[in-house]
Amino acid sequence: MMKEVLIGTLCGAGLFTIGILIGHFGIKKDSAPSWVNDVGKDVDEKLIQQFLSEVDAAQIQENLRELTKKPHMATTAGDEETVQFVLKRWQDPETGLEKAWRQEYQVYLSFPNPEKPNKVTVVNQSDAVLFTVREKEKPYYPEQEDPEVVQPYAAYSPAGHPKGKLVYANQGKASDYEYLNKTIDLRGTIAITRYGGAGRGDKAINAAVYGVVGVLVYTDPLDMNDGHLSEDKTYPNSWYLPPTGVERGAYSRDFGDLLTPYLAAKEETYRIPPEDITGIPPIPTQPIGFEDARALICELGGEKAPSDWQRGFNCTYNLGGPGFKSTSHFNNSDVQLDIFNYEKIVNSSNVMGVITGSVEPDRYVIYGNHRDSWVHGAIDPSSGTSVMLEITRVLGRMVKQGKWRPRRSIIFGSWGAEEFGLIGSAEYTEEYFTKLSERTVGYINVDISVFANATLRASAMPSMQNVIFQASKQVTAPGFDSTSVYDNWIRYSNRTSPTHGVIPRVGYLNGAGSDYAAFVHYLGIASIDMSYTYDRSKTNARIYPAYHTAYDTFDYASKYIDPGFVSHQAVGRTAGNILIRLADSLLLPFNCGDYAESLEAYLNTAVTLYEAKLKAKNISMEPLKHAVANFRKAAEQLDKMIQDSDLANETPLKVRKINDQLMLMDRAFLNPLAFTHEYGFRHVIWASSSSGKATFPGIADAFAKAESSGLATDWQKVHYHLSVAAQAIEGAADMLSEVI
Amino acid sequence: MMKEVLIGTLCGAGLFTIGILIGHFGIKKDSAPSWVNDVGKDVDEKLIQQFLSEVDAAQIQENLRELTKKPHMATTAGDEETVQFVLKRWQDPETGLEKAWRQEYQVYLSFPNPEKPNKVTVVNQSDAVLFTVREKEKPYYPEQEDPEVVQPYAAYSPAGHPKGKLVYANQGKASDYEYLNKTIDLRGTIAITRYGGAGRGDKAINAAVYGVVGVLVYTDPLDMNDGHLSEDKTYPNSWYLPPTGVERGAYSRDFGDLLTPYLAAKEETYRIPPEDITGIPPIPTQPIGFEDARALICELGGEKAPSDWQRGFNCTYNLGGPGFKSTSHFNNSDVQLDIFNYEKIVNSSNVMGVITGSVEPDRYVIYGNHRDSWVHGAIDPSSGTSVMLEITRVLGRMVKQGKWRPRRSIIFGSWGAEEFGLIGSAEYTEEYFTKLSERTVGYINVDISVFANATLRASAMPSMQNVIFQASKQVTAPGFDSTSVYDNWIRYSNRTSPTHGVIPRVGYLNGAGSDYAAFVHYLGIASIDMSYTYDRSKTNARIYPAYHTAYDTFDYASKYIDPGFVSHQAVGRTAGNILIRLADSLLLPFNCGDYAESLEAYLNTAVTLYEAKLKAKNISMEPLKHAVANFRKAAEQLDKMIQDSDLANETPLKVRKINDQLMLMDRAFLNPLAFTHEYGFRHVIWASSSSGKATFPGIADAFAKAESSGLATDWQKVHYHLSVAAQAIEGAADMLSEVI
Repeated sequence: MMKEVLIGTLCGAGLFTIGILIGHFGIKKDSAPSWVNDVGKDVDEKLIQQFLSEVDAAQIQENLRELTKKPHMATTAGDEETVQFVLKRWQDPETGLEKAWRQEYQVYLSFPNPEKPNKVTVVNQSDAVLFTVREKEKPYYPEQEDPEVVQPYAAYSPAGHPKGKLVYANQGKASDYEYLNKTIDLRGTIAITRYGGAGRGDKAINAAVYGVVGVLVYTDPLDMNDGHLSEDKTYPNSWYLPPTGVERGAYSRDFGDLLTPYLAAKEETYRIPPEDITGIPPIPTQPIGFEDARALICELGGEKAPSDWQRGFNCTYNLGGPGFKSTSHFNNSDVQLDIFNYEKIVNSSNVMGVITGSVEPDRYVIYGNHRDSWVHGAIDPSSGTSVMLEITRVLGRMVKQGKWRPRRSIIFGSWGAEEFGLIGSAEYTEEYFTKLSERTVGYINVDISVFANATLRASAMPSMQNVIFQASKQVTAPGFDSTSVYDNWIRYSNRTSPTHGVIPRVGYLNGAGSDYAAFVHYLGIASIDMSYTYDRSKTNARIYPAYHTAYDTFDYASKYIDPGFVSHQAVGRTAGNILIRLADSLLLPFNCGDYAESLEAYLNTAVTLYEAKLKAKNISMEPLKHAVANFRKAAEQLDKMIQDSDLANETPLKVRKINDQLMLMDRAFLNPLAFTHEYGFRHVIWASSSSGKATFPGIADAFAKAESSGLATDWQKVHYHLSVAAQAIEGAADMLSEVI
Repeated sequence: MMKEVLIGTLCGAGLFTIGILIGHFGIKKDSAPSWVNDVGKDVDEKLIQQFLSEVDAAQIQENLRELTKKPHMATTAGDEETVQFVLKRWQDPETGLEKAWRQEYQVYLSFPNPEKPNKVTVVNQSDAVLFTVREKEKPYYPEQEDPEVVQPYAAYSPAGHPKGKLVYANQGKASDYEYLNKTIDLRGTIAITRYGGAGRGDKAINAAVYGVVGVLVYTDPLDMNDGHLSEDKTYPNSWYLPPTGVERGAYSRDFGDLLTPYLAAKEETYRIPPEDITGIPPIPTQPIGFEDARALICELGGEKAPSDWQRGFNCTYNLGGPGFKSTSHFNNSDVQLDIFNYEKIVNSSNVMGVITGSVEPDRYVIYGNHRDSWVHGAIDPSSGTSVMLEITRVLGRMVKQGKWRPRRSIIFGSWGAEEFGLIGSAEYTEEYFTKLSERTVGYINVDISVFANATLRASAMPSMQNVIFQASKQVTAPGFDSTSVYDNWIRYSNRTSPTHGVIPRVGYLNGAGSDYAAFVHYLGIASIDMSYTYDRSKTNARIYPAYHTAYDTFDYASKYIDPGFVSHQAVGRTAGNILIRLADSLLLPFNCGDYAESLEAYLNTAVTLYEAKLKAKNISMEPLKHAVANFRKAAEQLDKMIQDSDLANETPLKVRKINDQLMLMDRAFLNPLAFTHEYGFRHVIWASSSSGKATFPGIADAFAKAESSGLATDWQKVHYHLSVAAQAIEGAADMLSEVI
């Protein structure tokens, strides 16, 4: 009986178990499709920690060494080698991206003629040459003697042979020439100007108004070297600019290929006639080193220049008689420029690489950096390229090993011809305007990754402040054991936010200093530009002193900018962390309340500066106040809606709806007709302004003009820009509001 | 033993069953969330059948009776009554929409002065009045005697009192005045012109060039009445225009509020000075009836007008001496215009109503029709409003009864001030530009729903051809038992498609004749404009003859346009069917292959007309060919991808990705800088063209200009427009291609 009971029990248990198994697996329940879990996944913090631990300073250093072997000015043989290098890395079967390719544009560049180098001389009345400016920078290492080092020149300066008496025109601002013109007939003169204060090309544009026939530009030691002049205090003995160092640069105002505005520069694309290009020097222009500038300026006659025009040379800066003083060996002599620059349409390459997203392949996060330099470009831009290649190595390996695939697609861009006016990135945005505009969640730009090794700096759309903070809190600051990049940053640069209290100061992207320009101003895409930078208590240098010279080498970078490449590593970790968060977060990490805070600050400034005077002209600021208040309200409602939702478990179309609101909100700020006189500037909040006021640029510039002219039509322009700004902000608020 | 076996078996079976139950219900499997089924649902054909059966001709008739009780010109008391009526219907608790509201703009309208009616007289040399043109149309019913009937006038014609000798200027085209000017000094003359051939305002704009001081416009009986002149052949005895009927209209060229281009016309919005408005008559202009026009034209002296200027009056159309013939009782007399029109900024209302989508509330299908008329507006626009109200009644009831909620949101717009230049719809698109641009799947416009009762006509983006066909096949044609609207249509108007063979001809939306203009040209949204229309073998009328007159009444509509309102019903069924398909289809019913077919037809025309001549100017058409080929390829790949997918069961984000590709493809055709001289025209494919060629409008117009001027700079403009078109089409192809 016991046996039977046992058998019965076993049989029963067996049947019971089989029943359970059949019940569970054999009968079809409405089971969840496999994608249900995928669509609700959020960013994986463990993966971020793994990424952070794998970003390697030594790898970055070796990237930099490879990238800076040769000068790699845009479209030269050296540039092509970097194309091949980046392609090889991104196509590596173990650490590469999913796919990578080059993309070419035919762009209009300007070069000096190696057969006929540009010359600057002092010639006397009998045309005898008394003095010749150096053609090339003094070599301290073999790098400076590389035959591929391009002679210092002003790209897009016309060729020509002007000769005339020299005057010192300070920074070449319109006001500088206006001042000179009070006492000196500038017609037929050559102006020597120092870098800073005005755009490169503006120094010549402003000069030509008064009949100046040629312009020299130099870097004053007080502006760059904290006053240091002598070789024992400059590179290779310090980070300061040697006396013969010359900053090269594009002397054009607009970004993108100058012959094909708003059109991608392809072979058969319509090109405007070169004579229709605006914003480039109308007269020959040449940059020179401060050793030579000193030899010229210290000999000038005429009245003593105003005190703020007196700079770092140990002589008096005179205005020029025009020309040299009577006691000078240059007395009665002219300065002669012989400029042989020529323009050419050449092939420039972007290198593109992608990792396709798993859940939302049609959402892009773009990370970009230019590849072309002026000479070896160790800092500008190869410090950024080295970091980008390290980020792609770490992420690429995770993808190749099947450990990770981002929710959204990631696109890496190694832009070409940035130094000639952000050309590669601008042409890319022109070619793919709609696709990029409709699908891009954010753009991260790391050009020069390390200016100096003190602290992080970042400029961004205010909505991205939060993700920058979040990422920088997770990265240890170089030189510290446990202080985060965030905690280090807040010591160097901070502000008091009405919402958050004291926080690091994130700048605004209202310039066009690097490849973020087309993304921000033309496409209205939320963007970040970041790097490590100076301790301003230690230097007043306008920028790192070897900028755009033949001294910006691997040696310079590793000795004076970032020994050990730890700041490079910190930037790579921070930027990569942000990249992963933008790509993987279920909900985009954008905070519209922070955007509202910036709009409120702009509004307060505008009300303080303008309201009383506008009221007197019967122009009301109420629509603008209404719009900003609406934006704040909409941002709060959206936040509340997000908090009240269980997004991981709701329909993925609800998450997508909110993400689209966050992504597209910035597009509402675009108005292609608001600033038609400036190429590519369409963002009503961040467009560049000459007013110097931290407020809505269209209103600020129009107000300054109206106040100065007093014309009724100019006051109407202020009203116009008020309406444009109010409508744009209302439109952005509508994107955040309940959907109809 | 049997008993024990029995008990054992029962116990075993019991345990087995319990096991199954526990296995199935007790152990948690990853069960599908409730939304998984919702997101995969497709359009419900049964619901469409129910909708079709409920659309009721009698209801449409009663809607029309109510809407046409009073004249309802924009912003008048009658207009306000229609606002209230539409609001009441859309807020009805049983058949209304989810919510409805009014939305006001402050817009610039032009009116005659009821205190000082406009006058046209013939005066002799002693200023004695020999003849006076009727101030109002002859009454046949009480409707024409309603004090609210606005005097015929030319909206936006300036006030003024010109007097001069009369000339007959045919249609007032530039070429007409050019012809006259060969033999007549036009300075100081008054021109009489007939409707057609040139835009209303252009007749005066073209005239002023030659010094003409005033313009009269009339409807020639040959252009509108198939030649019929006499009262026994015209309304109320037929559908033809009575001798005293006058077509009113906006004499402006641009659409949208004229003082606030690109800005929503709100109270404090910046307004351009009225003197800066372009595209309106620079000289006083007045429309008159053909009875009066005949009295003037048949008395004209001078040479006989060319044969194609001779029209329907039984007299010779002379050009004018200038002035009347010597045998006329008007000999030596002048025509005098006394125009008292004035402009005013007034409140105009759109009425908006919505049904929020269940699955994708952030996708909109918009259905619109204007509400304002010139007089009673039975056909224009109330035939459309009656149909729209019937569609909303049927759909609203389904929603209120909980039987249906669309996948996507539906927005209904009852636009204001369309007759003054599509103002209500244009201001709406300006105010909500980004939101509408990012979210709107399609726009359906039904303005005049029935011009005549013969056949359907539709104009649309080519991608929408297919859904129009699908819907029209499901609706029975009025007057038939089993012939569909589609089968009836193909008899009246067809073409041979390379892909589909013989199909009904769907027109292009390259004009700005109704409220679709802002959606197509400014926003680039896939749009449809449809109605029932004429049998062209039976009439050559330019439009239905009572258009914009005091005879466009309920009596006219129900007697002569659509007795029984069956054509109204057919339009309501077809348009509503399309609306439901756009709102409910899992995959948007857009066919990009049909768009490719239109681009290929445009390309073929362009190559035939232009390629040889452009080659001679070194301008290549290859980029355009490449772009069109790419578009075709991308459309095919997308089709294949759709066919290879099981969209109802895949992640909803994949369906959304494809739908976004289909929705946004058309946005890539927008270029806000391509046609800056024409307000709102940004669509590179459908922008208006004066060339008369069925090809890319920018290229066609630039080519015509270059060929006529021969200037190198004009040929460069052709090259520019080639590049613009090629880049736009490549951009659209990119939207359809694989996502990166």
